[in-house]
Amino acid sequence: MNFDPRYSGRNFTSVGTRPLRPDGVDKVTGRARYGADFNMAGQLVGRVLRSPHAHATIRRIDTSKAEKLAGVKAVITAADLPDLTDGDAAMYDILDNCMAREKALYDGHAVAAVAAVDARTARQALKLIEVDYEVLPHVTDVDEAMKHTAPLLNDAIFTEGLEEKPAKPSNVTKRTQFGHGDIHEGFGRADFVVERSFKTEQTHQGYIEPHACVANVSSDGTADLWVCTQGHFVYRQHCAQLLGMEASKLRVTSSEIGGGFGGKTHVWAEPVALALSRKAGRPVKLVMTRDEVFRASGPTSATSIDVRIGARKDGTITAAEATLRYSCGPYAGMWAEIGAMTAFACYRLENVRTVGYEVLVNRPKTAAYRAPSAPMAAFAVESAIDELAKEIGMDPVEFRIRNAAQEGTRSSYGPVYGPIGIGPTLEAAKNHPHMKAPLGKNQGRGMACGFWFNFGGQTCTDLNIGMDGSVSLAVGTVDVGGSRASLSLVAAEELGIAYEQVKAVVADTSSLGYNDMTDGSRGTFSSSMATISAARNAIKILRERAAQMWDIPIDDVVWEKGHAIAKGEKYGNLAALSLREIAAASGKTGGPIAGHSELVADGAGVSFATHICDIEVDPETGATRVLRYTVVQDAGKAVHPTYVEGQYQGGAAQGIGWALNEEYVYGKDGRLQNPGFLDYRIPVCSDLPMIDTQILEIPNPNHPYGVRGVGETSIVPPLAAIANAVSNAAGVRMTHIPMSPPRILAAIEAERGGRWSK
Amino acid sequence: MNFDPRYSGRNFTSVGTRPLRPDGVDKVTGRARYGADFNMAGQLVGRVLRSPHAHATIRRIDTSKAEKLAGVKAVITAADLPDLTDGDAAMYDILDNCMAREKALYDGHAVAAVAAVDARTARQALKLIEVDYEVLPHVTDVDEAMKHTAPLLNDAIFTEGLEEKPAKPSNVTKRTQFGHGDIHEGFGRADFVVERSFKTEQTHQGYIEPHACVANVSSDGTADLWVCTQGHFVYRQHCAQLLGMEASKLRVTSSEIGGGFGGKTHVWAEPVALALSRKAGRPVKLVMTRDEVFRASGPTSATSIDVRIGARKDGTITAAEATLRYSCGPYAGMWAEIGAMTAFACYRLENVRTVGYEVLVNRPKTAAYRAPSAPMAAFAVESAIDELAKEIGMDPVEFRIRNAAQEGTRSSYGPVYGPIGIGPTLEAAKNHPHMKAPLGKNQGRGMACGFWFNFGGQTCTDLNIGMDGSVSLAVGTVDVGGSRASLSLVAAEELGIAYEQVKAVVADTSSLGYNDMTDGSRGTFSSSMATISAARNAIKILRERAAQMWDIPIDDVVWEKGHAIAKGEKYGNLAALSLREIAAASGKTGGPIAGHSELVADGAGVSFATHICDIEVDPETGATRVLRYTVVQDAGKAVHPTYVEGQYQGGAAQGIGWALNEEYVYGKDGRLQNPGFLDYRIPVCSDLPMIDTQILEIPNPNHPYGVRGVGETSIVPPLAAIANAVSNAAGVRMTHIPMSPPRILAAIEAERGGRWSK
Repeated sequence: MNFDPRYSGRNFTSVGTRPLRPDGVDKVTGRARYGADFNMAGQLVGRVLRSPHAHATIRRIDTSKAEKLAGVKAVITAADLPDLTDGDAAMYDILDNCMAREKALYDGHAVAAVAAVDARTARQALKLIEVDYEVLPHVTDVDEAMKHTAPLLNDAIFTEGLEEKPAKPSNVTKRTQFGHGDIHEGFGRADFVVERSFKTEQTHQGYIEPHACVANVSSDGTADLWVCTQGHFVYRQHCAQLLGMEASKLRVTSSEIGGGFGGKTHVWAEPVALALSRKAGRPVKLVMTRDEVFRASGPTSATSIDVRIGARKDGTITAAEATLRYSCGPYAGMWAEIGAMTAFACYRLENVRTVGYEVLVNRPKTAAYRAPSAPMAAFAVESAIDELAKEIGMDPVEFRIRNAAQEGTRSSYGPVYGPIGIGPTLEAAKNHPHMKAPLGKNQGRGMACGFWFNFGGQTCTDLNIGMDGSVSLAVGTVDVGGSRASLSLVAAEELGIAYEQVKAVVADTSSLGYNDMTDGSRGTFSSSMATISAARNAIKILRERAAQMWDIPIDDVVWEKGHAIAKGEKYGNLAALSLREIAAASGKTGGPIAGHSELVADGAGVSFATHICDIEVDPETGATRVLRYTVVQDAGKAVHPTYVEGQYQGGAAQGIGWALNEEYVYGKDGRLQNPGFLDYRIPVCSDLPMIDTQILEIPNPNHPYGVRGVGETSIVPPLAAIANAVSNAAGVRMTHIPMSPPRILAAIEAERGGRWSK
Repeated sequence: MNFDPRYSGRNFTSVGTRPLRPDGVDKVTGRARYGADFNMAGQLVGRVLRSPHAHATIRRIDTSKAEKLAGVKAVITAADLPDLTDGDAAMYDILDNCMAREKALYDGHAVAAVAAVDARTARQALKLIEVDYEVLPHVTDVDEAMKHTAPLLNDAIFTEGLEEKPAKPSNVTKRTQFGHGDIHEGFGRADFVVERSFKTEQTHQGYIEPHACVANVSSDGTADLWVCTQGHFVYRQHCAQLLGMEASKLRVTSSEIGGGFGGKTHVWAEPVALALSRKAGRPVKLVMTRDEVFRASGPTSATSIDVRIGARKDGTITAAEATLRYSCGPYAGMWAEIGAMTAFACYRLENVRTVGYEVLVNRPKTAAYRAPSAPMAAFAVESAIDELAKEIGMDPVEFRIRNAAQEGTRSSYGPVYGPIGIGPTLEAAKNHPHMKAPLGKNQGRGMACGFWFNFGGQTCTDLNIGMDGSVSLAVGTVDVGGSRASLSLVAAEELGIAYEQVKAVVADTSSLGYNDMTDGSRGTFSSSMATISAARNAIKILRERAAQMWDIPIDDVVWEKGHAIAKGEKYGNLAALSLREIAAASGKTGGPIAGHSELVADGAGVSFATHICDIEVDPETGATRVLRYTVVQDAGKAVHPTYVEGQYQGGAAQGIGWALNEEYVYGKDGRLQNPGFLDYRIPVCSDLPMIDTQILEIPNPNHPYGVRGVGETSIVPPLAAIANAVSNAAGVRMTHIPMSPPRILAAIEAERGGRWSK
């Protein structure tokens, strides 16, 4: 299973081992510094006033009383964040989301903010701000929002991607379509066709750490920002653009991060904190409450998806079709587009078509949540696949194996696959003991597959060798899942030294070149590529220095196992020089030794997983229990297997919560009714079994070590795997996520009452 | 005056301009973060117990009562800093100075330390530590310490550098000698000989910011240190070695610095703070009080110097000799050696000999103070030179011009000079209006010359170009005098862009390669060299990217004024691409654009200055007033002339304080009697005239822009210039620095009483 000529035959020394994580002790002892763990002298407390209305015109904001309150140092509204986006629609949306301009577009939309000497004063000041709202009709449901009669969020939006330009504005910002072949012809050849509609509710990433930052704008136009983020370079660019600064004048330092999962890829409160600091002339700390995180950060889309799949008796799929409607919150997104691309990506299909609709609703701006959009599409498709297998009478694993994509398959979203892992994960799942374990009463087993693209992007790494031979690795991708350890392993591997000799840090934006953020499962993939490149550049210099120390030509010096070796019989008496020895002499041979790399990490390998899940359903209450859960996923090459397993387990755990309990509940008034962990129920330890993992390694030919991204794919199958398990346990097909007890009970009772029909 | 072919003809655009300093606003508004302006959650307060005895054996330390005090989290003694120096004598001395091991060697020597939840508890805990001292005889005077009868600080010290190995231990650690020719022959040819002995008292750099740090050691063996320092990479190495860590495991971030002047080049409290944090398992902030700064940081040497110079009637010096005794505190130093090297460096001498003695005394470990050791040597030599000119009947300026070193002169310490500025500064001084201005009653004018080596050393710089074309420059030399602005000017110059487009930061030790500290006037010299090199590397990539955008060979692309230009008629239709345009496309042309440089900045050009000073002496009280002061100094090339002038003025101001008032006063008990700014009198505004400056630019041929160091030379002439002025005003030769009113009055009265003799 080793497709990469550069990779094959390589015996890894450090990569693939499991050292203790370097940030672990600090994190468990409370010494790690998160977003709110930073303070500056003279720092003010920032707080944000938010709309209580789902949709309202802001007629007027009177901040005069708040400004007069003793201890208030700045009050800002949208007027303090003038529009400098110069026609950049995406940035305008970010700006408007940070601080509502003409209309409040969701319950929780920021309308003003204050900076005061303490939190009590800041809260008092918020109460003194008078906002004159004209409340407008609102819509929060994705299907409702698509109706012609729905209230319009933005009457300048005319659906893009239609054959004809629409005559009227709409909440649908865009239609996208993917696929190939002729689905009509395909369905015509089908012996069995399954067609079903699904719905998923909006969820939040549920990261433990709320958004937090400290902004400090100096009157000379430079600024510092300490912030919890998945991408401090991206935050720098966004904030600089919104504030009208040159990027280099804003130094952004990323804190440790208590979870992001896509929710910390956009700026939220940071431009507000900077604008407050600019106006107050003092540093401002702004920490969101949990309520604010739920109401006004970036949850995932709610969806409505129709799937139709046809197959012949022998189990060959002849055609597949899906229509996907994804809520975007109040601003245009590309969530349905991504869902449409991923929906059938696991399969080898002759005829396939997917259509996506991006839908505006009066909810917070949608953000990524791990493999964004893919879990909902997989839920719909993998549920229908399971149902179709049953109709045909085939084992669902065999049915999937028969139709699985392979190297050379043209994917449903266009590209032709290289070496991929969907087949191997299915085979491994089929042979896994879990698949054969007995089930009890009211218990069901489900399985499902998942796909994610993975991403590469711009990446910079500096590798500096100290005079004692210890190595400092400065990376720019925020460490969300242990990448500092993984990248240290890679540096140690390439240099041929011990892992303990390397320490990686996440450098600030002024100390390193631009890095895309830690998203798209790119952190370890792209930064390891840059680390290998930087290490190879450093090795060239180490060889030069050794050549200089020996006074021989550099071409006669090779690098092996952390040593420079003089190649050739004439050098028989030259003892190999270790990295430490060369480093110790560096002051006399030309100065410090370093390797640098700036690159675009092309060729992130696509990733596939197959999950198996056993669920028990209490038919009296609809309550569920996850009995057993197994993740099989391709990692390309697992740099630090424990972290890879952690990613697999984390994705599955989040998927379990999403599948069974988590959802945004809006009242008829358009207000979020459960903005807190008491009412928005994420899984706790007692909800979860130990999640078993199996790492497959189908090397990515585009990476020197074969690495693929691993962080996102693991959240794609759970919704479907659990839905299939629940459906098997309860004897009813579940079509609405989350499958909370009331919803399961209702489905069972509908089935009992004969009202359930396929 | 342009000796450098690379430099000549260059029309600078940015270099030589005077933009506002980027750190200015933050510093004057109190927002800049100094050593004590950093805090961590759970941070403890560290405090140090210090010896009240100048010399004492530590029989026993009982910390048990302190450890039992509620709120005390760690108590340490030397036992908690075990000796890991492995025979490195200099590091052992640093270790012993941080925490006394067997003996307390000076009043203020650290003997124990505590970390507690607050300052009050920490102070209480110090009182509960019982130290059983055996008080020993002590010696604080440099001449006394050289006597055979003096108490020995370290009976393992046998003077090095003597012809025969001494039989008995001594407080003199080392004798050094420099010179050439035959001084006996030279003195034989002299028509006039002046011979005189001088003494200078110990002074402190008097930086406004006391030493301060926050140390955070994690139980996994990694650590962070936030610290006010002149060299965070050096602090990293020292602390790592003393704590037994690999350097890369310790991340050191330098704060803004409220003055250093050489006093922040050694670790003092930092290893103690780290050891406390390691033991307490919590972050520890340790801030020295002013009393501690005086008693236990690194003042300059006290000296005793004999000078003998002979000259012919025509004003040619035939021989020169000096014997220099410098106090080192309780540990070996190389202060007299430096003094011996610099003493006659301004002059072209056929016969010269200098001998230095390093002398241990029961005073704090000597540290550098601007051009360390040179001001005292210059005081002695330039006083004698003035006296000799008078004897001969020559104008002192003319006498110096006649004997000034030139390009090609073999210096008194060995090397042959390249192009140098002593002659030009003397000519400029001679022609300066100050030299011709009338003087009133009791007023005298003095002048003197000064020399400093300057230093280069290891230097790294990273230059990263953002996608908006703004430039982040990461440097590793701590900015003590505005070097961030100077280096931004240099980057802008080399790239051909506006100064405002560049922002420089001082990167932490994990984000950049090793840099020597900001000493030896090396900051701007060496980091500008590395910046130019990094910018040139970036320009190569900018040209490559432009070639790629145009699809033409890179060799056809030149870089001019911030633009890539396609050279050749066939490219007539290609509009030049600006740096911003190339940067904007960088994501599509290969990723972020950067330039890096790691180098040893060889060839720091030596530097010379001539100062002129007018002093009025009140013959009734001995009080002095500085009426006028002019500095003429060679800068090589002044990158930011305002900062260069600031360095000139700062050195002169400190020299004035040193010359007239500042001194450590020890009682007979060996205790420092004036450890505070009320009793240790540094100049305040009302003590100083506006200090005039004249920048000469004799390019350093070893630097692409001709830059020399400028920070230290300016403190070399003031002691002598002021002594000559006071001597001229009072009519008595002053031989003891500081020339405080009682000392001047005593000299006048001795002269009046006929007790004064040459």
